[in-house]
Amino acid sequence: MSVTAAKGFTAAGIAAGIKENGNPDLALVVNNGPRRAAAGVFTSNRVKAAPVLWSEQVLAGGQVSAVVLNSGGANACTGPRGFQDTHATAEKAAEVLGRGAIEVAVCSTGLIGVLLPMDKLLPGVETAAAQLSEHGGEKAAIAIKTTDTVHKTSVAEGDGWTVGGMAKGAGMLAPGLATMLVVITTDADVDSAVLDEALRAATRVTFDRVDSDGCMSTNDTVLLLASGSSEVTPEYGEFAEAVKAVCADLARQLIGDAEGAGKDIKIEVVGAATEDDAVEVGRSIARNNLLKCAIHGEDPNWGRVLSAIGTTGAAFEPDRLNVAINGVWVCKNGGVGEDRDKVDMRYREVHIVADLAAGDATATIWTNDLTADYVHENSAYSS
Amino acid sequence: MSVTAAKGFTAAGIAAGIKENGNPDLALVVNNGPRRAAAGVFTSNRVKAAPVLWSEQVLAGGQVSAVVLNSGGANACTGPRGFQDTHATAEKAAEVLGRGAIEVAVCSTGLIGVLLPMDKLLPGVETAAAQLSEHGGEKAAIAIKTTDTVHKTSVAEGDGWTVGGMAKGAGMLAPGLATMLVVITTDADVDSAVLDEALRAATRVTFDRVDSDGCMSTNDTVLLLASGSSEVTPEYGEFAEAVKAVCADLARQLIGDAEGAGKDIKIEVVGAATEDDAVEVGRSIARNNLLKCAIHGEDPNWGRVLSAIGTTGAAFEPDRLNVAINGVWVCKNGGVGEDRDKVDMRYREVHIVADLAAGDATATIWTNDLTADYVHENSAYSS
Repeated sequence: MSVTAAKGFTAAGIAAGIKENGNPDLALVVNNGPRRAAAGVFTSNRVKAAPVLWSEQVLAGGQVSAVVLNSGGANACTGPRGFQDTHATAEKAAEVLGRGAIEVAVCSTGLIGVLLPMDKLLPGVETAAAQLSEHGGEKAAIAIKTTDTVHKTSVAEGDGWTVGGMAKGAGMLAPGLATMLVVITTDADVDSAVLDEALRAATRVTFDRVDSDGCMSTNDTVLLLASGSSEVTPEYGEFAEAVKAVCADLARQLIGDAEGAGKDIKIEVVGAATEDDAVEVGRSIARNNLLKCAIHGEDPNWGRVLSAIGTTGAAFEPDRLNVAINGVWVCKNGGVGEDRDKVDMRYREVHIVADLAAGDATATIWTNDLTADYVHENSAYSS
Repeated sequence: MSVTAAKGFTAAGIAAGIKENGNPDLALVVNNGPRRAAAGVFTSNRVKAAPVLWSEQVLAGGQVSAVVLNSGGANACTGPRGFQDTHATAEKAAEVLGRGAIEVAVCSTGLIGVLLPMDKLLPGVETAAAQLSEHGGEKAAIAIKTTDTVHKTSVAEGDGWTVGGMAKGAGMLAPGLATMLVVITTDADVDSAVLDEALRAATRVTFDRVDSDGCMSTNDTVLLLASGSSEVTPEYGEFAEAVKAVCADLARQLIGDAEGAGKDIKIEVVGAATEDDAVEVGRSIARNNLLKCAIHGEDPNWGRVLSAIGTTGAAFEPDRLNVAINGVWVCKNGGVGEDRDKVDMRYREVHIVADLAAGDATATIWTNDLTADYVHENSAYSS
């Protein structure tokens, strides 16, 4: 499963001592070819961690032989020294694996503004390399956890080829800015241009539409690597669907494990004039703290949905807006609709439909409720 | 004090029975002239409550004889019937006071999506009119409270003229979307164009820079009324300063009384290329839930400040950013600065300075921390 479900990949996950509690904290994923094609998408935060700045350079070449991932430290806002540390990590992996450093991507997650303990990380790379296995995907997925309560993996099977992946990130809610790290692998025989197209198409409607708490990490990274070892080149549409399925599955797992959350909220915007409008409205609803508190309290407070819609520039008329919560149209034509007492909110998943009555475009954004647990988890000193 | 500090105004505050708990819930402010000049600014939410839609029409005429304000119900998302109710309220006040309804502004605050109990509100207008007094400002300020723990008033004295006002709103944090309602009065002899200019200039740098929880109400209203009864026409700059002083004082009181908040956070952005950049960055920092949790935990987590800055389009270089928290430059040149243990965060007011090192423009945004109490207050059923 995970990153070793596809042929041509080995992986390992170990405890290198980066985390003080001794939990696994270092993962290594290696592409044994014959291809080493890759694509990546990164945080759009302009304050980027050193590993993001490095890996963007690596991905520019379209080739990735290995990925080193560590939890226990984000290596963000660490200046030239932080960048040197990332570079040294790539050099170390390259040396141990006999590859070029410029084909080694690096991902980090943890506290911002703290240098990584390189005296532990570099020997850890050697240890991990010695444990690389075709069955190492699970261990790698475990080693990248921060506050995740479960490790997250997914697989989609094609006809003779496979796409598999792992993710960490507690819905972008974790201490130290959470960070979503995702590595997806495939043995399909495709080049980096195909990978790039499929990955961007998939992330646009999956990870980009997960908005647990509105906070964007300095470290978010999604990588897609192809080994070509299945010797099958799938039809593009089929391949893109498989990549999207894995991304959607992992994104849903991230929301389901969001720190401190009690509800997973699916916000479906329909009747929008454009998809951009639908996304803008969905995101505005997803980021409304008052609504998120109400959902936490199992209160179908549609007024807060309307007020969130009202802050956007989307095309709509206020007196034509409709809102359903868990199937009950509590707001019709901008006013009171069906009886709100009919809304059953006992379950973890909550489904909000916002109908703009302005067109045919739709988009779905996932978020979480806002809870006292979220506050507690994120207000701990130096978290 | 309050709206009756300036000559030419009477006010009253009564319990009309709109609130089920019997607390004061209806205020009336009357301008006895000789002038009845007025200006107003309203929520920029596109989903506007009936009283906002009505009062915008009233203010278009530049004349306001009276303001009826009620707590206990926002009259928002209530359709044509809600608008009729607002209209009937203005008609009632006009009839009782012997004025034209089109000179009666109406403000409401409370739960969205619920019709007001007109059988209580209309008789309440008569009762309030019977109690109008030159000393009624305090009672009016009390009657507009929702979850405010204290009523909020302010006065600035000019040379022979006065500006005074009242405000409600718990930092835009209250159940039912809080709503900020502000009525400011003056006996200065100025026309509506002067009022409009002074009010917009003042709100732009005061109320518009209070961002307690990023949620925008459907009902926010700020009115400025002039009676001219001092027979003094102040120099414009002096008058504008007095209006700004009253707005700034009331805005600070709103933040200080924000529901569930434990900290008042002053975010001062300096070194910005433009004032717009400074405001965008300040607002992004103010809306970062992770940072707001950290401040609640008295954690000087500058990484979260940087990551919030990084989501903006403002001009800056990541490796030139500096951040001070309570006077300690914990982040210098985008990396670790002075020892974070030097930061003393025991007091309610927290001062964050974000230096973009990109110019000379500045702006200050006020916000609050994010607390479990905020979640509790806003997740109560039907709040």
